[in-house]
Amino acid sequence: MIIILKPGTARSEADEILGQIESAGLKPLYMPGTERTVLGAIGDERKLAGLHIENHPIVDRIAPVLTPYKLVSREIHPSDTHVDIGGVLVGAGRFTVIAGPCAVEGLGQMLATARAVKDAGAHCLRGGAYKPRSSPYSFQGLGEQGLQILRDVALQVGLPAVTEVIETGDVPLVEGYAAAFQVGARNMQNFRLLKALGRSGKPVILKRGMSATVEDLLLAAEYIVSEGNPRVVLCERGIRTFEKATRNTLDLNAIPYIKEHSHLPVIVDPSHGTGVRNYVGPMAKAAVACGADGLMIEVHHDPKSALSDGHQSLDPDQFARFMNELRPFVEAAGREL
Amino acid sequence: MIIILKPGTARSEADEILGQIESAGLKPLYMPGTERTVLGAIGDERKLAGLHIENHPIVDRIAPVLTPYKLVSREIHPSDTHVDIGGVLVGAGRFTVIAGPCAVEGLGQMLATARAVKDAGAHCLRGGAYKPRSSPYSFQGLGEQGLQILRDVALQVGLPAVTEVIETGDVPLVEGYAAAFQVGARNMQNFRLLKALGRSGKPVILKRGMSATVEDLLLAAEYIVSEGNPRVVLCERGIRTFEKATRNTLDLNAIPYIKEHSHLPVIVDPSHGTGVRNYVGPMAKAAVACGADGLMIEVHHDPKSALSDGHQSLDPDQFARFMNELRPFVEAAGREL
Amino acid sequence: MIIILKPGTARSEADEILGQIESAGLKPLYMPGTERTVLGAIGDERKLAGLHIENHPIVDRIAPVLTPYKLVSREIHPSDTHVDIGGVLVGAGRFTVIAGPCAVEGLGQMLATARAVKDAGAHCLRGGAYKPRSSPYSFQGLGEQGLQILRDVALQVGLPAVTEVIETGDVPLVEGYAAAFQVGARNMQNFRLLKALGRSGKPVILKRGMSATVEDLLLAAEYIVSEGNPRVVLCERGIRTFEKATRNTLDLNAIPYIKEHSHLPVIVDPSHGTGVRNYVGPMAKAAVACGADGLMIEVHHDPKSALSDGHQSLDPDQFARFMNELRPFVEAAGREL
Amino acid sequence: MIIILKPGTARSEADEILGQIESAGLKPLYMPGTERTVLGAIGDERKLAGLHIENHPIVDRIAPVLTPYKLVSREIHPSDTHVDIGGVLVGAGRFTVIAGPCAVEGLGQMLATARAVKDAGAHCLRGGAYKPRSSPYSFQGLGEQGLQILRDVALQVGLPAVTEVIETGDVPLVEGYAAAFQVGARNMQNFRLLKALGRSGKPVILKRGMSATVEDLLLAAEYIVSEGNPRVVLCERGIRTFEKATRNTLDLNAIPYIKEHSHLPVIVDPSHGTGVRNYVGPMAKAAVACGADGLMIEVHHDPKSALSDGHQSLDPDQFARFMNELRPFVEAAGREL
Repeated sequence: MIIILKPGTARSEADEILGQIESAGLKPLYMPGTERTVLGAIGDERKLAGLHIENHPIVDRIAPVLTPYKLVSREIHPSDTHVDIGGVLVGAGRFTVIAGPCAVEGLGQMLATARAVKDAGAHCLRGGAYKPRSSPYSFQGLGEQGLQILRDVALQVGLPAVTEVIETGDVPLVEGYAAAFQVGARNMQNFRLLKALGRSGKPVILKRGMSATVEDLLLAAEYIVSEGNPRVVLCERGIRTFEKATRNTLDLNAIPYIKEHSHLPVIVDPSHGTGVRNYVGPMAKAAVACGADGLMIEVHHDPKSALSDGHQSLDPDQFARFMNELRPFVEAAGREL
Repeated sequence: MIIILKPGTARSEADEILGQIESAGLKPLYMPGTERTVLGAIGDERKLAGLHIENHPIVDRIAPVLTPYKLVSREIHPSDTHVDIGGVLVGAGRFTVIAGPCAVEGLGQMLATARAVKDAGAHCLRGGAYKPRSSPYSFQGLGEQGLQILRDVALQVGLPAVTEVIETGDVPLVEGYAAAFQVGARNMQNFRLLKALGRSGKPVILKRGMSATVEDLLLAAEYIVSEGNPRVVLCERGIRTFEKATRNTLDLNAIPYIKEHSHLPVIVDPSHGTGVRNYVGPMAKAAVACGADGLMIEVHHDPKSALSDGHQSLDPDQFARFMNELRPFVEAAGREL
Repeated sequence: MIIILKPGTARSEADEILGQIESAGLKPLYMPGTERTVLGAIGDERKLAGLHIENHPIVDRIAPVLTPYKLVSREIHPSDTHVDIGGVLVGAGRFTVIAGPCAVEGLGQMLATARAVKDAGAHCLRGGAYKPRSSPYSFQGLGEQGLQILRDVALQVGLPAVTEVIETGDVPLVEGYAAAFQVGARNMQNFRLLKALGRSGKPVILKRGMSATVEDLLLAAEYIVSEGNPRVVLCERGIRTFEKATRNTLDLNAIPYIKEHSHLPVIVDPSHGTGVRNYVGPMAKAAVACGADGLMIEVHHDPKSALSDGHQSLDPDQFARFMNELRPFVEAAGREL
Repeated sequence: MIIILKPGTARSEADEILGQIESAGLKPLYMPGTERTVLGAIGDERKLAGLHIENHPIVDRIAPVLTPYKLVSREIHPSDTHVDIGGVLVGAGRFTVIAGPCAVEGLGQMLATARAVKDAGAHCLRGGAYKPRSSPYSFQGLGEQGLQILRDVALQVGLPAVTEVIETGDVPLVEGYAAAFQVGARNMQNFRLLKALGRSGKPVILKRGMSATVEDLLLAAEYIVSEGNPRVVLCERGIRTFEKATRNTLDLNAIPYIKEHSHLPVIVDPSHGTGVRNYVGPMAKAAVACGADGLMIEVHHDPKSALSDGHQSLDPDQFARFMNELRPFVEAAGREL
């Protein structure tokens, strides 16, 4: 860690901090400059977190040398992690497509949609039973009844089911119904929930928060992995920027960044990422091209009647076409669909 | 609601939507233009939410006329709401200062800090027992033991206690110890938690999320009020922007906007809003000047040793000076400190 | 245009605005609602710009129905525009790669780099003679001498030259040396410069500003086209967001949006868009996949010694590999490289 | 400067960079760590800019210790600078109000408005003759005729005139008519213009760009000062964020930051900063309270008919009330209006 002191700091003041660094078992460095003095701490700087050196009144700012996350870092764990979701391996040679409606609305809707996505070649089925919605007056999901429908339909069509969990208390219930948990953007920093998932036995698809940096996302994954569950799939789904032409700004730059800094697989959700049906196809192809391991796509058997996100959902014909158009890009990327 | 159709839409296609509007009990309007056709729906457009008109393939976009929130809106409820926190009235003529450490670290720390803020004239005591932290390796709070210390110290110095609740399951526990709940930025859209607080009997200080628009904040407040608890205090605490000179960008523009659109009181947290000890004073004065009803300020008896947020905390002397320097601005605003 | 009035507005107050709309030759509409009154104006709403209806004290806000740009809009001009840069057709079946150093640094550097990009299959040569730099202490470009080197080298290797123009007064000079002008992000709203380019005879590559919406970009293009020069190529190069993992956030969502709303060709600059050498390849492939018409890539014969942007420049070997790896994606997109 | 190397770098590779640092006359430091190696350069690190150490393939990233600007820095020049605009001293004990219309529209409009702002106590008159507008179909200003009107009216009412210059070639012309130049947000990084103003004899009001960090703003000021003109007044006018409740997000946090890091005076433009007439007053008071040296306020004798920015302009009565309501806050700040 590098510690930049405020101008005009005396050696005696710096000594207090140098002493703290030494006590923590790191090697302290004193580097007086012409205008500013800089201190260094050589060793595992994560041990310094408890010292709160940044609080000291003579400290202008600190510059960490190492990443703040550890277990999810590629420096610590160089080879790619593959995550098994009910028999589907995410992060290996196959490109994974998870598809289905935003919300479970009923048996008929789920069955029609699930058959369509299965026929078109999707590998997993999605569908939300608990829907966090900005307005209290919007549809909030069917709850446990939705979980039952999802499980039954998933069994019937033969696809592993992925569904969102929004609260620590629901973890055991959801675990009983789904092959993988999904953590939504609004819960990416619900740390109690992350810890509970870290103690569960099922994989977790962790969506990036709307204002989360990629580093925040990796730290959120670290919460899960550090509790003992290494089966985490990251998911880029758009960030909030000044641009309102799209609902969110899908940040594909995150994909090569994550691939460089972490061993975890990463998928992309262009449905939420753009919020526009016509842009889902182009951005899905772009996700393949820049190195993503899979996609999460909203499909509804009748988007016009969808209770949520219909404007960004593909209908069965559009999804079948989508999968066909995706194929050459998946092959160009050296993968299989 | 105004509905702008895609170019080249036929009258017959529009009729389907006009019929839906009429069935919902609103008056439909058909407005063919030279280049585009526009539809209108006159009446309480919130009834249209269930129709999901935006999903229809001929719809380019919709423009709401009314605000999506209702109970928290000044149009519905023109006079200011005052919220009583353990005898302290927020939103009335008095300007309210809530002060204390980021986290409860122990009895000695709480007592020393509480006495200092009480002596300097603060009206409520803050202190977190549950700390959501970006990194799993940071201090996470003392939990229920922290709540006990907070309650005991608050009683001893005679200030109502405010503390954060981070999960639905903790609501009854926290309610037993504190005069008011605080909902942190990361939980502003934890809707299950908001609903639980809406059924509780204590006031709620609701902090704006890092990427939440003011409309999102008002919708989050609507969740609490629509469950039956009208005692909500909004809190601006900074949003995430490209600017990194400050930890967050404290968005004071939100204050006059909220005052125009809502009857709820609103306070400002310049400690998190700037993340820089030296800017807390200037931005606190600015908050008074633009019409805020109060402040939330981080104070620590020894910031150098604080387990979290020490770099943005004032020490007792700084806080006493801060209160003195605030006074002329509170008076200029026609209020009492 | 839709005009939403403030609550409590009387009919007599609205009549003034309705009269103005009628005088401008549009059909006025009066739509009283239960809570708000809404006015409409049917016809070419761009004629209303001079009325400044949004200034009227009874107006809450206005919602335009039509796009504010016209000549660059696909609604007006449905078929794709192809732009000829010195014999290279941008926007047609061929995927165009413009490559070269950030800045012209000298004859040796330009020649070595130009040969490398030509050999690897690039179609145009880039190189800046005028460099806008954040700091006055950074290298600012060679000026006219740089233009001469660029032209000579471009002739020698047989590639059309593209270079940035930063001021109205320089337009005739630059036009004498280059096959196409480039307008940088910082000048996207230098409207005097745009107008001058609109009266020139050469094509213009218009880069999106760091905080420009896509609508702002299309309006900037409208400035050029409305002065008589229809040969505009748009260029996405990243926007400024809270995320600092990459230098900018390359916003590929803009590509399908532009393709839907405008007939102009659009290329992508992943070098500036990410600012990281290792991410240029992945994001270039993503640009192809989501429908871009070409790329602008920074290449330097010796990035370590580059006077600007060396950290995001490819060296000749990397660029040759880059072109080879791009090819399957260009083919998947049904184009030729 | 601190230089963090990529993992696994050998000593011999680092030696090349250490040698470069030494050749530049700085003291090199080699700090091998357990996971990463860090290099340091002690001395005036601005001398290293020419080395482009960040381009080196073994370098992960660099962390500067000193600010990149120098002449405008408070570390170099600790005491406040006062800037004289036609006899009005900005930055001293008096709080300066610059007021007038967005654009000069004609003699009648200017005279009526100028008299109103003078009567209410404004110190300088503003009015634009050249208007950069997003759309080519909006009013673009009267040009030199506007400058003449502005000068004549300013003389008649006895207020120094401030007006925007948008191009290098216009500098001599504008200098002949105005007491101070204004550089608009879109030109903050028009470096050729900044240099020309650095060689002129009149003060410059430099507005922050919509996506400029405060550091970018200070670097832009450095361009002017380093050419020989120290008479620069900075102006905060709002940045672009995801929040659309206000036209821009007026970033008052910039005021205490600038006061800490620079000796230049800084004023605030709440008219553009919020874009909403009703929020101009509250945010102006906030600007006083957090330490700004003055304000720039849009006033129009008849906002309803204004050719630009009427929705954010105050009328004469509103401005007179505004000045009266501002006074107690100016006094609380220990200044005179």
